[in-house]
Amino acid sequence: MLAKGARVTVTSRGTTPRTPQGDVIVVGGGVIGTAIAWRAARTGRTVTLIDPGGDDPGTSDKASLVAAGMLGPVSESVFGEQDLLNLNLHAIDRFPAFNQELEEAAGKSTGLRTEGTLAVAYDSGDLAALDRLTSFRHSIGLAAERLDARQCRRLEPFLAPSTRGGVLAAGDLSVDNRRYLAALRAAAAAAGVRTVRGTATKVLEGTVRLTAPGGSGTGESTLTARHIVIAAGHATRALDGVPEEVRGAIRPVKGQILRLRHPAGIPHILTHTVRAIVQGHDLYFVPREDGELVVGATQEERDDRDVTAGAVHDLLRDATTAVPAVSELVFAEASAGLRPGTSDNGPILGPVFGSGDGTDGNASRIIAAGHFRNGILLSAVTADAVAALLDGDKPHQAWAPFHPGRFQKIREITA
Amino acid sequence: MLAKGARVTVTSRGTTPRTPQGDVIVVGGGVIGTAIAWRAARTGRTVTLIDPGGDDPGTSDKASLVAAGMLGPVSESVFGEQDLLNLNLHAIDRFPAFNQELEEAAGKSTGLRTEGTLAVAYDSGDLAALDRLTSFRHSIGLAAERLDARQCRRLEPFLAPSTRGGVLAAGDLSVDNRRYLAALRAAAAAAGVRTVRGTATKVLEGTVRLTAPGGSGTGESTLTARHIVIAAGHATRALDGVPEEVRGAIRPVKGQILRLRHPAGIPHILTHTVRAIVQGHDLYFVPREDGELVVGATQEERDDRDVTAGAVHDLLRDATTAVPAVSELVFAEASAGLRPGTSDNGPILGPVFGSGDGTDGNASRIIAAGHFRNGILLSAVTADAVAALLDGDKPHQAWAPFHPGRFQKIREITA
Repeated sequence: MLAKGARVTVTSRGTTPRTPQGDVIVVGGGVIGTAIAWRAARTGRTVTLIDPGGDDPGTSDKASLVAAGMLGPVSESVFGEQDLLNLNLHAIDRFPAFNQELEEAAGKSTGLRTEGTLAVAYDSGDLAALDRLTSFRHSIGLAAERLDARQCRRLEPFLAPSTRGGVLAAGDLSVDNRRYLAALRAAAAAAGVRTVRGTATKVLEGTVRLTAPGGSGTGESTLTARHIVIAAGHATRALDGVPEEVRGAIRPVKGQILRLRHPAGIPHILTHTVRAIVQGHDLYFVPREDGELVVGATQEERDDRDVTAGAVHDLLRDATTAVPAVSELVFAEASAGLRPGTSDNGPILGPVFGSGDGTDGNASRIIAAGHFRNGILLSAVTADAVAALLDGDKPHQAWAPFHPGRFQKIREITA
Repeated sequence: MLAKGARVTVTSRGTTPRTPQGDVIVVGGGVIGTAIAWRAARTGRTVTLIDPGGDDPGTSDKASLVAAGMLGPVSESVFGEQDLLNLNLHAIDRFPAFNQELEEAAGKSTGLRTEGTLAVAYDSGDLAALDRLTSFRHSIGLAAERLDARQCRRLEPFLAPSTRGGVLAAGDLSVDNRRYLAALRAAAAAAGVRTVRGTATKVLEGTVRLTAPGGSGTGESTLTARHIVIAAGHATRALDGVPEEVRGAIRPVKGQILRLRHPAGIPHILTHTVRAIVQGHDLYFVPREDGELVVGATQEERDDRDVTAGAVHDLLRDATTAVPAVSELVFAEASAGLRPGTSDNGPILGPVFGSGDGTDGNASRIIAAGHFRNGILLSAVTADAVAALLDGDKPHQAWAPFHPGRFQKIREITA
């Protein structure tokens, strides 16, 4: 265990302190970075969080703000990815207790909903896929109830009459992603985390260089600490000092998403998280108790943040096909974010040792990035895992396949 | 001619001045009110403009901010309305000189475009309608050139291949509605118009009662002037002191509209104003030189300002049907406004004398409202007409059918 209570200090440009002056610096103010900072601080560590800032989903770079907050361990994308599925199952087990502790520490609700996910089908091909999903969920011990069309529409009366059937996954959860991030921030602040506004540009052993917001170049500074945790999402690929093979493995995957609202006097049209495949497009609806209904999302291998007319059109077309009453809702927001994808779709968690860097045995650089579509689901167990690493312990075994060293191995094999 | 140079004064609540202390108060800060205020001030009058304020199209009540800025005298809605067509023809003749004077006075461009309107058809029924429109335009001396599909796509290469043919109306204009309002404000300010932030609640002979922004009730005040011009758009129906039959004749017609933007590197996909009927829906595209493309608009007999998922979907569906490349544009804004419609679709312009009100021979209350879909087109000739009334002259004869007294007659006939 390292000395606790030491202060992280800011030094002016050019003066490199010889000894670490603080405990932990976390680079990245999204749900991953903020959860890590909170958990590290509540054990008594001195923690500084470097956050580029901004809560406007139109300009902030945080995928957390654009997300929907669906928490289901099984999705199309992990169906065949056993390691990721194991990790997601570990995460969904952990989430409720973590969330409860968070709400208490923050004094805020995260909008957790426990009604589960109803996946619906519109043709026989989709129905067959749902049957495979049901069997699979049963095989791994998860609840899944096959429902006919009538049962689906009894649960969700506004589903289109063309609904053929569905599966109710009763164990799935959802939170309001923005309230969840707000709660993490409040809890982190209450635990003593100091937030520094700025963008990290380089991460060395014990040192982070950053520029102040606005990036005029004159606002550069250096922070030092014994441990540095890199949780900068897709921006990790632009961070000097992160090993090349890790930077190269991170790919931004653009997602566009809509936020609708029920106008006064219209009852909420959905209660469950609803997933549907409409004309080949995977679509989801996440309802909130405050009347918001999130509809998402595109998956595009692009790194711009433009909301496009085509994506808004396609999402609304598919949404009104699946749930026609969506037409009556208020169109509150369309936004785009960049998910931190990786070359194997798995997150990256563990110590990194870049070529040419020495380690002093006590100092560490830890990466916790690449959470792709599962950032909120994985935030709790990521914070646990980083806390373990900081204490010199091993993270939960579900994390073993997601060590950053795997990309170096891939590089060596393919070289 | 009245005394010029007298000041309009604000008195505290409850103190009613006995004599008018100013020249002109204009109620309403949209394009109609601001154009009237500018033209009245530039002849030397002391003018106060009462404007509820706000330039955010999401919260401001001004239809001007939500509009597209199309300036065509002939549209579906005036095809059979001869009086309104005559007025619109008068307005389109007047507009360019007025606009030029405005740009010089304001030192700002209004974004006037002169490429004209291309109306396109997708089936034989629409084509026949376009032929009727062509003949009609010719019969009233307006330019109209019938084009086959190849010619349409030569003018606008991004039109859908299914375009059957079209008509080019070379004399139609467009302006950027927001820049036009900004120019009117600048010109009004330069001419000495004083703007008071507030919402008029009651208009009496020589007196306007208003509440300060926020409407706490404690911010009430009274303004006095010899002439009061009511140009409050659809809100005129809520204004105490306006004759009941006029208030009852005004109906808000909700319109929802989209603003798209060309991303960097994509050439502008349209040059002309394009009108299309897609599956029975009348649709228009108004391109701006700065890369904005306005797509509108719904017409709904509702008085809420909600942007709905259904309207956004329908506009994008029809727009991508007519011009598929619209999908590639950035979705910049969706907004909703309330057009000031009337029971006969015509504007209302002239002095009003409510029952029970005395007139002193010199004072006047003039109404200039109900401009429905033609506010920007009619703004120049409305300002001219009000200037004439203030001088004791008659407005242009095209205004004769639009006297507010017509609603009293309708009332008597139907009583």
